[in-house]
Amino acid sequence: MPSRLSCGREFHCVPDVNSVLEWTCKSGFDFSCMPIVHPRLKREFLENAAKNRGGPLTRSDLCLPCGDWNNLVVGKVSPWLKLDSPHHHVRRTSELGLKQELSFAAHLGMPAVMIPVNNANCCNLARALNEHILSSYVPQQYWIHIPLMSASDMADKLFKGEDDAMEGETFEDTWQWWNIFRTLCDSTRKLDLVLELTADIPAEAMIERWLSEPLKAILVSTKLFLTNKKGYPVLSKPHQNLIRKLFKLDVQVILTGVDRHPEKGIRCYQQYLDHLWQTQEPPDPVTEFSKGFEDFLQCPLQPLMDNLESHTYEVFEKDPVKYSEYQRAIFTAVIDKVPEAEKDTKELILMVVGAGRGPLVRAAITALKQANRKAKKIYAVEKNPNAVVTLENMRDEMWGPLVEVVSCDMRNWDAPEKCDILISELLGSFGDNELSPECLDGAQRFLKDDGISIPSDYTSYMAPLQSARLYNEFRVNKDKDKPAESSFEMPYVVRLHNCQMLAEPQKVFQFHHPNRDAFIDNNRYKSMTFDIAEDCVIHGLAGYFDTVLYKDVTLSILPSTHSPGMFSWFPILFPLRTPTYVTKGTKVVIDIWRRVTEKNVWYEWTMVRPQPLPLHNPKGRSYTIGL
Amino acid sequence: MPSRLSCGREFHCVPDVNSVLEWTCKSGFDFSCMPIVHPRLKREFLENAAKNRGGPLTRSDLCLPCGDWNNLVVGKVSPWLKLDSPHHHVRRTSELGLKQELSFAAHLGMPAVMIPVNNANCCNLARALNEHILSSYVPQQYWIHIPLMSASDMADKLFKGEDDAMEGETFEDTWQWWNIFRTLCDSTRKLDLVLELTADIPAEAMIERWLSEPLKAILVSTKLFLTNKKGYPVLSKPHQNLIRKLFKLDVQVILTGVDRHPEKGIRCYQQYLDHLWQTQEPPDPVTEFSKGFEDFLQCPLQPLMDNLESHTYEVFEKDPVKYSEYQRAIFTAVIDKVPEAEKDTKELILMVVGAGRGPLVRAAITALKQANRKAKKIYAVEKNPNAVVTLENMRDEMWGPLVEVVSCDMRNWDAPEKCDILISELLGSFGDNELSPECLDGAQRFLKDDGISIPSDYTSYMAPLQSARLYNEFRVNKDKDKPAESSFEMPYVVRLHNCQMLAEPQKVFQFHHPNRDAFIDNNRYKSMTFDIAEDCVIHGLAGYFDTVLYKDVTLSILPSTHSPGMFSWFPILFPLRTPTYVTKGTKVVIDIWRRVTEKNVWYEWTMVRPQPLPLHNPKGRSYTIGL
Repeated sequence: MPSRLSCGREFHCVPDVNSVLEWTCKSGFDFSCMPIVHPRLKREFLENAAKNRGGPLTRSDLCLPCGDWNNLVVGKVSPWLKLDSPHHHVRRTSELGLKQELSFAAHLGMPAVMIPVNNANCCNLARALNEHILSSYVPQQYWIHIPLMSASDMADKLFKGEDDAMEGETFEDTWQWWNIFRTLCDSTRKLDLVLELTADIPAEAMIERWLSEPLKAILVSTKLFLTNKKGYPVLSKPHQNLIRKLFKLDVQVILTGVDRHPEKGIRCYQQYLDHLWQTQEPPDPVTEFSKGFEDFLQCPLQPLMDNLESHTYEVFEKDPVKYSEYQRAIFTAVIDKVPEAEKDTKELILMVVGAGRGPLVRAAITALKQANRKAKKIYAVEKNPNAVVTLENMRDEMWGPLVEVVSCDMRNWDAPEKCDILISELLGSFGDNELSPECLDGAQRFLKDDGISIPSDYTSYMAPLQSARLYNEFRVNKDKDKPAESSFEMPYVVRLHNCQMLAEPQKVFQFHHPNRDAFIDNNRYKSMTFDIAEDCVIHGLAGYFDTVLYKDVTLSILPSTHSPGMFSWFPILFPLRTPTYVTKGTKVVIDIWRRVTEKNVWYEWTMVRPQPLPLHNPKGRSYTIGL
Repeated sequence: MPSRLSCGREFHCVPDVNSVLEWTCKSGFDFSCMPIVHPRLKREFLENAAKNRGGPLTRSDLCLPCGDWNNLVVGKVSPWLKLDSPHHHVRRTSELGLKQELSFAAHLGMPAVMIPVNNANCCNLARALNEHILSSYVPQQYWIHIPLMSASDMADKLFKGEDDAMEGETFEDTWQWWNIFRTLCDSTRKLDLVLELTADIPAEAMIERWLSEPLKAILVSTKLFLTNKKGYPVLSKPHQNLIRKLFKLDVQVILTGVDRHPEKGIRCYQQYLDHLWQTQEPPDPVTEFSKGFEDFLQCPLQPLMDNLESHTYEVFEKDPVKYSEYQRAIFTAVIDKVPEAEKDTKELILMVVGAGRGPLVRAAITALKQANRKAKKIYAVEKNPNAVVTLENMRDEMWGPLVEVVSCDMRNWDAPEKCDILISELLGSFGDNELSPECLDGAQRFLKDDGISIPSDYTSYMAPLQSARLYNEFRVNKDKDKPAESSFEMPYVVRLHNCQMLAEPQKVFQFHHPNRDAFIDNNRYKSMTFDIAEDCVIHGLAGYFDTVLYKDVTLSILPSTHSPGMFSWFPILFPLRTPTYVTKGTKVVIDIWRRVTEKNVWYEWTMVRPQPLPLHNPKGRSYTIGL
């Protein structure tokens, strides 16, 4: 989080750029938003007439050094541009006007141009802007300015009960304007969203939906401010809460409207907004740990195929929660295995399979001590020879002969004896996705009939997700040597941030260990039906898991039950090839399969309703997990 | 149309393949559908148990020569396979069973395997078949067997009024089963549809929708047959009508069920069905002309950029309607221009711009003669030097000095005098798409102020279309050197056949000539809202045009007003990148732009509602028409 809020000031009429910029800086603002063209210079187009019109379009670029145009000025297109007018002449004139202004803004090198969208009839504006974007090589962003609520919605709320306003509300949902606009522009990253706060505030779910959009800035009018006892401008509690929510996305703020507290000076608005920024709740440890990873797609680890690196071990060993919970689970299991009466006579055999650099061995030793129980042997089985070096050093220097290090793949190991407790940490973000089931099914041959597996159960969960940003990440992740759909046919591990979960996650696959079925089958198939609460676009499926380590000792990365402070797992994300617009009240059916062959494991998934999509990753063509 | 119907016979139990095939041929059938596995050999799978089961899967492949397996036998998978059972064990066993049967059918080289889909829960079956398709290199088709109406729908119709049955009907619409199944399989061409006729027949619109699907065969049960006075099996009038409609797609028929007229012999069913085939209405001239072009994508001609070939001229000159209508239009215009009183004194100047090999010159000469009016000169302007050779020969051999051949692009020609009537045939399937507006705007400088343009007006039309077949054609039309979306960003000229128009066409762009606007602007923008009558998938937009040549003389390729017998234009088709499932009652909004620069013209289009899609062909990136 930047140490202070980036705050701009909007102007409707700028006769002199220099004095305005000077004033802006002096008043504590970081940038200003101003019309691209000078107010004095109004234009009349009659087709080619514009070319021949006398006089300049606007003030000269020379009035500011390039560095100032590039850093301090966000351009605004003229309010008279009506590209979606029903009148051909108005539309055509507006197209030419927009083209001229965008071209001049590019010439000046303004970092961004702000373009207002005032209703759902914005297709021609979107087309014209898209054409400009495709023609332009200037690194310029386009800030699409949308009100949080439409004027007619607010009128509705005033005159009718909330329930009666349904029809109008749907039609005038301003998110629809944005969704039409950006979709027509093929969700280009060149578009950012600028949300104008309104006096009324929409429902929580609708705010959440905006948080899944590429929100760049919020526009706050001085009209929204109240005056506190000391005469300073302040926002109402609901507006404060709203702004704090939007701050999660690192937005900038643009102040608009006349100074309504001239006795205190315009600066006090900026100071108040910065105060809100400074007084945000400090991030929780997981958020702190995840800094810089937000919405960053990672390929899931394949620890079975690849040997993890020292750095990876180090990061995960630092988790403050995971190993203490493992320790609790081992403690409980050990107590269950050895009654108080036998604590001096009975000696347990423990095995840690996939011991890595030893955190579970350490947890087991501590748990035994805590429980005052004895182990005859703790086998530490690890296939990565590099991690085995660490384990052997630990045994020599700390653990002693109680621990036997076995440098071997657990699937091939011929154990000299059977164990009472089999301990592993093979779970991925989607539970079974690092092939814990296959490994443990293999390893359980050296677990006694009454032995305990830690973990004993795990379950994956899934929920539909909206995130235009992540959709763009999928598209960019394309491998030139592979078919275009490949990057949509693999799951990603990702710290979900600029997105909205569209329904409560549902259970997907469950696994139990030891698995005593006569024929073990780790193929799975699940069909889930989700009720969608708001009009939205589904871009993918967020995946989570929880696990029962032993009895009441659990770990979870499900948002509703997330183990506090645990950072070992980010969620997993399954893309959908086609962003699918879904209206509220729709039942969305998602099907997912876990497929197993002798060589590998993969998932196939798709949407079945309301709109069926092709199977993703059929036959594991784009992604498999190697056994 | 093949001279006789291809008719097969279905069997549920085939103890001896040879005798069944012999009997099938003797009874007049062309092929038989039979279970892949022998009835005696039932299987029990418990995971790998199948591998170890004693005895063969089915009869040996040696019982028939390969040629017979390849030509005479369509395989059927076992009815006990329940791949979408809620019970894991049943599902798993069915998966293994299906795999085994499909593998054996591939081994035998059967041309097709028939697979029944009995309800909307068919996702796992679709997944399993898709996996097989991706694994198999055998040129085998998969015939998905779907009933025309579901059993529950028919019960509904029986017990309730038609109106009350709405809810159940939607849910059990068997087209949904098919749509889910084929979409999950990514609409692969490996899937064909086999429709089983039912006692009840659904509404007309639903039949139309099936006609847009890749219908390969219809399954007709002997139960549907009535007995006529002479004791022979016949179908009811509604069933006859239905079958005749389905015959439009060159389907095969499969007879199923026991012989209910044994005294007449099974052959009489086949003979009756072939009788229906033979007694189809003969095709109209346009259909006759279009043979072989059905659903074949052609790039629209660019006669401005490219010179047409002799063959192309020859084909279009043969149109029996177009030139006689032009002649009527010229006749009427000539009469209007020269009152009876002036017929001996007033001499007209006519210009044919884009004269090609002269059909419009001929029409003009004939019209003048019919009208008993005089022309001073008929200029025949043509830019294609190859066609000018023909024109000059015509003038020398037939027309004489009345006709002056001008070898020049009408846009550059410096006419020696102005004309009374400007005649052209520059229209494409979408009216303006061969740049008639731009050409005539240029040419009208040599039209007198009170001169007449033939044509005087033209209008394009558009309607949303469903056609999985054409969607597959778009995909296949991909150019390796271009981005994947390119083939979805250009219009195609195509004889629409295996498709359904989803709403009445609406007007798009209109042009009038001569155009006396102060500033001529041929840019256009149109937004259209269509009401969709049935659940469907939109794959593209069908385009048409009509034109007023002069006063009441018109030409049209709109289905509802198509000029009878005129074959010069097939419809045009604008693809949509994403097949979009739409429910009945939905309002579909389609936007289209005509964009004009000094170098070229192009269209941009997209769907805006219910689901916005990216703009197609923005900035003409995939397709432009050169000026």
